Amino acid sequence: MAKIAVLGSGIMATALSFPASENGNEVRLVGTFLDREIIDSIQKTGVHPDLGLKVNESVKAHQLEEAADVIADADVVMCGVNSFGIEWAGEQLSKLMKPGQKLLTVTKGMRADDDGTMHILPDVLRSYFDPELAESVSWNAIVGPSIAGELAVHHDTCVVFCGQNEADVEYLAGLFRTDYYHVWTSTDFVGHETGAATKNVYAFAAGFAQGMLRKAGKENDRYVMYNYGAAVFAQGQKELRSFIKLMGGDPETGDGLGGVGDMFVTSMGGRNVKAGGYVGEGIAFSEVQDRYMKGVTLEGVAAIKVIGKALGPLTERGVIGEDEYPLCRFLYSVVAEDAPLEMPWDKFFQGLK
Amino acid sequence: MAKIAVLGSGIMATALSFPASENGNEVRLVGTFLDREIIDSIQKTGVHPDLGLKVNESVKAHQLEEAADVIADADVVMCGVNSFGIEWAGEQLSKLMKPGQKLLTVTKGMRADDDGTMHILPDVLRSYFDPELAESVSWNAIVGPSIAGELAVHHDTCVVFCGQNEADVEYLAGLFRTDYYHVWTSTDFVGHETGAATKNVYAFAAGFAQGMLRKAGKENDRYVMYNYGAAVFAQGQKELRSFIKLMGGDPETGDGLGGVGDMFVTSMGGRNVKAGGYVGEGIAFSEVQDRYMKGVTLEGVAAIKVIGKALGPLTERGVIGEDEYPLCRFLYSVVAEDAPLEMPWDKFFQGLK
Repeated sequence: MAKIAVLGSGIMATALSFPASENGNEVRLVGTFLDREIIDSIQKTGVHPDLGLKVNESVKAHQLEEAADVIADADVVMCGVNSFGIEWAGEQLSKLMKPGQKLLTVTKGMRADDDGTMHILPDVLRSYFDPELAESVSWNAIVGPSIAGELAVHHDTCVVFCGQNEADVEYLAGLFRTDYYHVWTSTDFVGHETGAATKNVYAFAAGFAQGMLRKAGKENDRYVMYNYGAAVFAQGQKELRSFIKLMGGDPETGDGLGGVGDMFVTSMGGRNVKAGGYVGEGIAFSEVQDRYMKGVTLEGVAAIKVIGKALGPLTERGVIGEDEYPLCRFLYSVVAEDAPLEMPWDKFFQGLK
Repeated sequence: MAKIAVLGSGIMATALSFPASENGNEVRLVGTFLDREIIDSIQKTGVHPDLGLKVNESVKAHQLEEAADVIADADVVMCGVNSFGIEWAGEQLSKLMKPGQKLLTVTKGMRADDDGTMHILPDVLRSYFDPELAESVSWNAIVGPSIAGELAVHHDTCVVFCGQNEADVEYLAGLFRTDYYHVWTSTDFVGHETGAATKNVYAFAAGFAQGMLRKAGKENDRYVMYNYGAAVFAQGQKELRSFIKLMGGDPETGDGLGGVGDMFVTSMGGRNVKAGGYVGEGIAFSEVQDRYMKGVTLEGVAAIKVIGKALGPLTERGVIGEDEYPLCRFLYSVVAEDAPLEMPWDKFFQGLK
């Protein structure tokens, strides 16, 4: 049994309160400044409005003002914000966390320096910490195919808890593991975090075919465009593995839950796929963002903007070849330059033996 | 321009007549003894009844009695039967083919000896040939994510032509390549054929979740079971790569069109997924086969019966470990022993670092 404090009360962070609380842990959800209404709702009715479900009785919800007290004596501190909030979370946690606490993050994404050097988000969080505190904190993350609501309603879900220290990830896995939440552990931290970030890049492309069919008035035809989607998925998987290798992870991580499994689930639907659908209809991405999906959080697009942009300087510096990552480069041209949807098939599947 | 004779006029063989004939090749479809009505229909109206489409004007259809003449002067001979007909096709082609002809097969599956040694289908075909003729024939295959109807209606489709000889696969690819049929080439013949066969194994499992939801009356719920499907897909991808390695192919082939791409498209629907759905509902597989899907060709189940059965003797002989291929072993117990649907999650993702 442990005290688990969660900064950010979005759907994923809240979904994790189900297995955690059912295992007898004390779970405390702390809302960010954007989560006031969510926390209000949970405090009054127990219902998380975005998830559309009542959290377990024992789970407590707190407004941000209580964060210091709630986090101070926790054994485990979770970072449950989305990637847009990672810098804010770094500032907060660096002030609120105590030596020896275990951090567990569910935020997915990347940050890159101007020269294209990329960083996984746990390292971004860490950069806000005093070096001594950073050293005494244990850094861990959850990756794998998890649609939050499915976990919350107790459907079988398989994930990987990853981190630098085997004993710590095993301890954390033990707190959450149930008969429906199946948890594996890994110390390929950078590999798993890279897979989790890059899968979002390719999920955006999973929406194209549906939009193209809609535009052509063929969405209810007998023959749709799974061949197109499968080819894009396969090229995405090749690039995902390459990114893991580039970041120093184990490419085999790309075959598992944190790679192809996560890319599969993310390709099945959600906001990024929807945004890709508009592009498939022939709408310039800037218009999708400013009009059709104004104000909607798009983690896939955010990942493309960071990772796709980094490919330029990485190529200039000779770290990667010009012919590598053709799909990610193309997706970057779509979201950053409103490039039309002309899939560069000829550049795919290079080096086939 | 080449003369292309196709033995078997199923939907895949017929779909390939579109790019082939549009490139100016002379395409001759030859029906098997099971295809009499299909050939009749094409001869009278041009329509392939199962595909629901009219073939191109220049494509000619022939009943089996004309096979000898039609095949004798062809440059390329295609084997378009399904895996249940591979032995029959071997007998026919060994008598009808001429030295120097190029064989191109689209049949997917495996055969295994009693000791578990597995063989790709081009090798099964070859075993029927006189050794001298076998040596002078060029052996090739098409793999990759291709729903036949999508190709036939000219939706973008990406595939790999594979074979032992690079010049031959390049020649064949050139005959079929169009602006919607994107063709790569590879000499990893065994790797690609293994991926194409094993992907069918895992597509059967892709139907389970849908059936489980149906049984529970939850198929239209807000939260379905993509997490479950994604975990099964990820374990399937791990095993598919292992099978490629076991057969002497390049494991990286498993990441591309002939591996994960093909598994993706096959998991999106079709007869194997439907059969898996019944199992998901809790119906014993023998009842699915004898009642709900009586007489329906199930390539995935056929692959499970061959490959899953081979795992026993391969384990006994120490060729593979007991903990390898847990999903394939489980699927074999479902189709061969009517085992209930209790997914052995604990056996999955072994050796995670």
